[in-house]
Amino acid sequence: MTSTLIDGPLKISDDAADLLFREARTANTFTDEPVTEEQVKAIYDLIKWGPTSMNQQPLRIVLVRSPQARERLLPLLAEGNRAKTGAAPLVAILAADLDFHEEFPKTFPYKPDAKELFEGLDREPHARLNATLQIGYFILGVRAAGLAAGPMTGFDAAAIDQEFFPDGRHRTLVVVNLGQPGENAWFDRSPRLDQDEVVTTV
Amino acid sequence: MTSTLIDGPLKISDDAADLLFREARTANTFTDEPVTEEQVKAIYDLIKWGPTSMNQQPLRIVLVRSPQARERLLPLLAEGNRAKTGAAPLVAILAADLDFHEEFPKTFPYKPDAKELFEGLDREPHARLNATLQIGYFILGVRAAGLAAGPMTGFDAAAIDQEFFPDGRHRTLVVVNLGQPGENAWFDRSPRLDQDEVVTTV
Repeated sequence: MTSTLIDGPLKISDDAADLLFREARTANTFTDEPVTEEQVKAIYDLIKWGPTSMNQQPLRIVLVRSPQARERLLPLLAEGNRAKTGAAPLVAILAADLDFHEEFPKTFPYKPDAKELFEGLDREPHARLNATLQIGYFILGVRAAGLAAGPMTGFDAAAIDQEFFPDGRHRTLVVVNLGQPGENAWFDRSPRLDQDEVVTTV
Repeated sequence: MTSTLIDGPLKISDDAADLLFREARTANTFTDEPVTEEQVKAIYDLIKWGPTSMNQQPLRIVLVRSPQARERLLPLLAEGNRAKTGAAPLVAILAADLDFHEEFPKTFPYKPDAKELFEGLDREPHARLNATLQIGYFILGVRAAGLAAGPMTGFDAAAIDQEFFPDGRHRTLVVVNLGQPGENAWFDRSPRLDQDEVVTTV
């Protein structure tokens, strides 16, 4: 099979770049088309390869699929986020597991004392940083499946923690609505900063 | 031109998925091939479209290109990260700008009082979260350009802030080495958590 990669400063094709970045948007309305378990599996099997420091992989994902669970979530969101989240085919609560180090024997076998070392640390900054990197990968992975996805942070994080992670070891970071964009799905595209406003070379 | 997108649960082609996720790695050695300004521009023009909440875009990037700047950075890294960072064609310091709200008149014109509202807030959690999402996009953008990239967090962040961001309004989050992988560029692939260890449906 011929490669779809191209010769140029970017190796991914224009339509892949459009799907993931340039034409991708955060939808405010959705069609009724469901997000299937097959799509969820394909997205996870892709994004799990995204890198984290020390392979920490602290991201945990709660997919809100039942109407009952949706009803528990909606009142904990900022008012402006409720209607679109109520209408999305699938909603993902993305959280950091503060006890990610318990998986080190599997995820970082090169350093047998890693789990013990992290028992004495404040793990929350590590968990937040690496889970947030993974949320970046997740958003692009959802888009790779042809679905709209963007990050929402307007919610009562402590209340979502309590409602969906009663074990106390998780911190909710971002909520993402997934689905096919519906009618009038978005506002005008928001301006981006120019390279010279963001990148400095020293 | 024919689309390179495919029919299946993932729409991006297998080689795009391999390049970005499945075969992509964090390199520990590099060839001498430089990372060009043209590549940097292509990466930025791609990743700037990655979504942030309220279009905050707090990520700021310092590209360490001169030998003098590299010498200032290396002692601030954990010892295990110095040799590979010394040998990388290009090093990126990725930081959050706590004063991202000053750009709201450009980046979020829909809410004219946004800048004023954020003046009274603790902006650091917003800056860290959204800049870290953007670092996820950056890492995949570097890979889209056919280069190796992975996140390093072993460094003295306060010392890098002081050395490279003396204005006091930035927080260094991650350092990334960019380049073409060299000989013996990586260890064995680290195991990933299974879907049922990460994803719950409610």
